[in-house]
Amino acid sequence: MNNYFKERKTIRDYSDIDVSDDVIYSLLEDAIRAPTTGNMQLYSAILTRDIKKKALLSPAHFNQPSVTGASVIITFCADFNRFIKWCEDNSAIPGYNNFQSFISAFLDTVAFAQQFNTLAEQAGLGCCYLGTTTYNAPEIAKILELPKMVVPVTTITVGYPTMKSLETKQVERLPLEAILHVENYNDYCAKTIAELYSSKENMKENKKYIEENNKETLAQVFTDVRYTKANNEYFSKIYYDFIEQQGFAFPVNTKF
Amino acid sequence: MNNYFKERKTIRDYSDIDVSDDVIYSLLEDAIRAPTTGNMQLYSAILTRDIKKKALLSPAHFNQPSVTGASVIITFCADFNRFIKWCEDNSAIPGYNNFQSFISAFLDTVAFAQQFNTLAEQAGLGCCYLGTTTYNAPEIAKILELPKMVVPVTTITVGYPTMKSLETKQVERLPLEAILHVENYNDYCAKTIAELYSSKENMKENKKYIEENNKETLAQVFTDVRYTKANNEYFSKIYYDFIEQQGFAFPVNTKF
Repeated sequence: MNNYFKERKTIRDYSDIDVSDDVIYSLLEDAIRAPTTGNMQLYSAILTRDIKKKALLSPAHFNQPSVTGASVIITFCADFNRFIKWCEDNSAIPGYNNFQSFISAFLDTVAFAQQFNTLAEQAGLGCCYLGTTTYNAPEIAKILELPKMVVPVTTITVGYPTMKSLETKQVERLPLEAILHVENYNDYCAKTIAELYSSKENMKENKKYIEENNKETLAQVFTDVRYTKANNEYFSKIYYDFIEQQGFAFPVNTKF
Repeated sequence: MNNYFKERKTIRDYSDIDVSDDVIYSLLEDAIRAPTTGNMQLYSAILTRDIKKKALLSPAHFNQPSVTGASVIITFCADFNRFIKWCEDNSAIPGYNNFQSFISAFLDTVAFAQQFNTLAEQAGLGCCYLGTTTYNAPEIAKILELPKMVVPVTTITVGYPTMKSLETKQVERLPLEAILHVENYNDYCAKTIAELYSSKENMKENKKYIEENNKETLAQVFTDVRYTKANNEYFSKIYYDFIEQQGFAFPVNTKF
């Protein structure tokens, strides 16, 4: 059974066959059993099937082809709106307009999304997380008409895999030693780093990747092309401001 | 196969039987296959088996009995330290000391933790997430000797379930309609909220829970006892300041 976990991979290319509502709803229903903070279920899932809506969402995800190519797109949102409404309707005064509550909702949302991802993949569907969701959250929220106290966290595109995408090679991962620490955090020296990353660096695909990007090292492809300081800082400000705009105040702006 | 997903539940009481390193390592190794931002694997797992260390961690988790009662405790951390060291050793200038990078690492960490949780439960282990990790992160980081760019995100306690804990009733969840939105976010009116939460409110266990806490409504147990405004604000400031102290600057303090 655990072969699924060892062999899973992200699928970005989908066939034209639609994934039915029945299938999606049944998977989401099971995913609801994922662990959640105090059983508050601080998340919502927004389904996009409408072709026009996919086209609207596409630029917010930098036109990654899996957005318009997927049968269904699910935007997973941190959601304190529903819980707060329930409190207010039940003579309870909510105190959730703060950073720690946002963090709880974010955590709940990712655990739920990941549970859905596992269920969907085990059911033979192909899935792809879109990290762009936290970059262009304001735009996405506008398209999906999100109210206050709801913030997009991640998006999963879902479809039946093409034959070709099933044949793609699984990408590499660092060995277990790289991420495991026993009792205390065992900080890395240059020699350890070199050993842990050597297999990744020596892969034919990654050497080609460095060349294609006109870089000298694989790390430079990340710092200079894929995840640059300028972009990270630009999108930090956008997401930070949007979280606050949606109603979660950061402590620096809170009067204690 | 999907019966596991429908029937899973959190287990807080463990037998005295130890979970071997072989079992834990094999589960973590499979969990490494969880989706991760740009294949950066921005997380670390810190294992605690040492009884003295569990006793040290226990107050940071408000002495929840599953901490000292578990065979193994795993603290899952957002980790940009390893990746930055790799960049610096490879003539690449990292730009990851910002909020968006923290968010990516946080997301990676939860997806990884949730994948581990699923694998562990499917292997017959009992698991419990500890939300207290983001409350007392500074204390936990000190005990586990976390360097800069590493921030605790969540903790899972792991052990073989006691017979009694296996017999506990699965807790309720909201129905799928509560969390699902098609095309647009469909905001809730008072009538919908009442309908979605009615089954939860009418449960014998929850009525008893209101009584035990001397409250009038179930929502008040959350706002006045379990997740209070004062606590949320207090722990917001602690986590916010600690994230910054570890090296992730919030945009408000960044010069653009």
